[in-house]
Amino acid sequence: MARTRTPQRILDAALEMFNLHGEPNVTTNRIADELEISPGNLHYHFKTKQTLIDTLFGDFERRMLGLLGGDPFERADVEDAWLFLHLIFETIADYRFIYRDLNELCGRDRDIRRRFRAILKLSMRSAADLLQALEHAGYCQNGASRNEPVIRNIVLVASYWISFDQVLEPGKEPRPGRAAIQVMSIVSPYLQGAAREQFELLAAAYRD
Amino acid sequence: MARTRTPQRILDAALEMFNLHGEPNVTTNRIADELEISPGNLHYHFKTKQTLIDTLFGDFERRMLGLLGGDPFERADVEDAWLFLHLIFETIADYRFIYRDLNELCGRDRDIRRRFRAILKLSMRSAADLLQALEHAGYCQNGASRNEPVIRNIVLVASYWISFDQVLEPGKEPRPGRAAIQVMSIVSPYLQGAAREQFELLAAAYRD
Repeated sequence: MARTRTPQRILDAALEMFNLHGEPNVTTNRIADELEISPGNLHYHFKTKQTLIDTLFGDFERRMLGLLGGDPFERADVEDAWLFLHLIFETIADYRFIYRDLNELCGRDRDIRRRFRAILKLSMRSAADLLQALEHAGYCQNGASRNEPVIRNIVLVASYWISFDQVLEPGKEPRPGRAAIQVMSIVSPYLQGAAREQFELLAAAYRD
Repeated sequence: MARTRTPQRILDAALEMFNLHGEPNVTTNRIADELEISPGNLHYHFKTKQTLIDTLFGDFERRMLGLLGGDPFERADVEDAWLFLHLIFETIADYRFIYRDLNELCGRDRDIRRRFRAILKLSMRSAADLLQALEHAGYCQNGASRNEPVIRNIVLVASYWISFDQVLEPGKEPRPGRAAIQVMSIVSPYLQGAAREQFELLAAAYRD
């Protein structure tokens, strides 16, 4: 098997260490140490730590835009919503260092702030579209997709569940399944028909 | 009028600058500069920047515990819930630097992490108590106070609305009123009787 190229190995190690220890607490020297390469070798591929962060943010952004920018749902049921949230939350868990220090990251890098804000706005759009698709299929009361505080709550919980869990249960693995249930709980009172039962079944499966 | 004592002036300036620029971006020298005192004078009162942070966190903690640790509500209506959230959110806005870099702050200071976690747990308890008081008064469907994802969502939105707003609308003043509406939107589908109308009136008053 061909050996993974050095830049990718550096990115993988940086991502893992940022996620584990928080980006502010990991130096490029420590990453080089971990990989048993020289700091010079690392800096040949990534000039500064910010270059590393920017590249990882770009990877994260590509995955998120791939999910959020797909064809809009025409009709959707609870399983579609559930799967969609799960894919989003796995991406967030894979790049959780971004969410851990989000405000600091956005405060010192205007470009990342602008791009992250675009992701948040697209997320609000996707949340509204998904609710509308549930409404069209008769699974959700009409109007939920235009309820602004509900849409904001969905995206807020979707964005900060991982920080919240880290403060409450430090060192534990992220739980995208529980987070998906939490987000769907915002919507569940508006569900109707078979969707309500479908939600109860999913929620029961993810209860501790 | 007597001149405010130096330690309090230092704390006030630190709080304002931490809130405005983010704690990681403010040095003690900059605080001394702002007050036109020598760095030595500042360090005489607060040995390190961490001492300053600890003291401000203690002030924040006292205000939060004062609100969260009051006598439990027996019965409550929507106005009681609204007023309670408003007082909490004004405290959060006054000490918003803590929430801006929460995970970093909790990561580097185990004592603060422990104490902040206690505030979160007490908040979940208060949220459940308040919902129960609404249930007792007949304003809320029975069972909402035992719905764990709902309780988690309330405290998550209550804790991270300020970070979320800062990323979406940087530089704007915090809006505790909008945040209170957002939190009450999690509960509003469970409201019944006169409480539903009361909520609609409050929400309408805070709409843009």
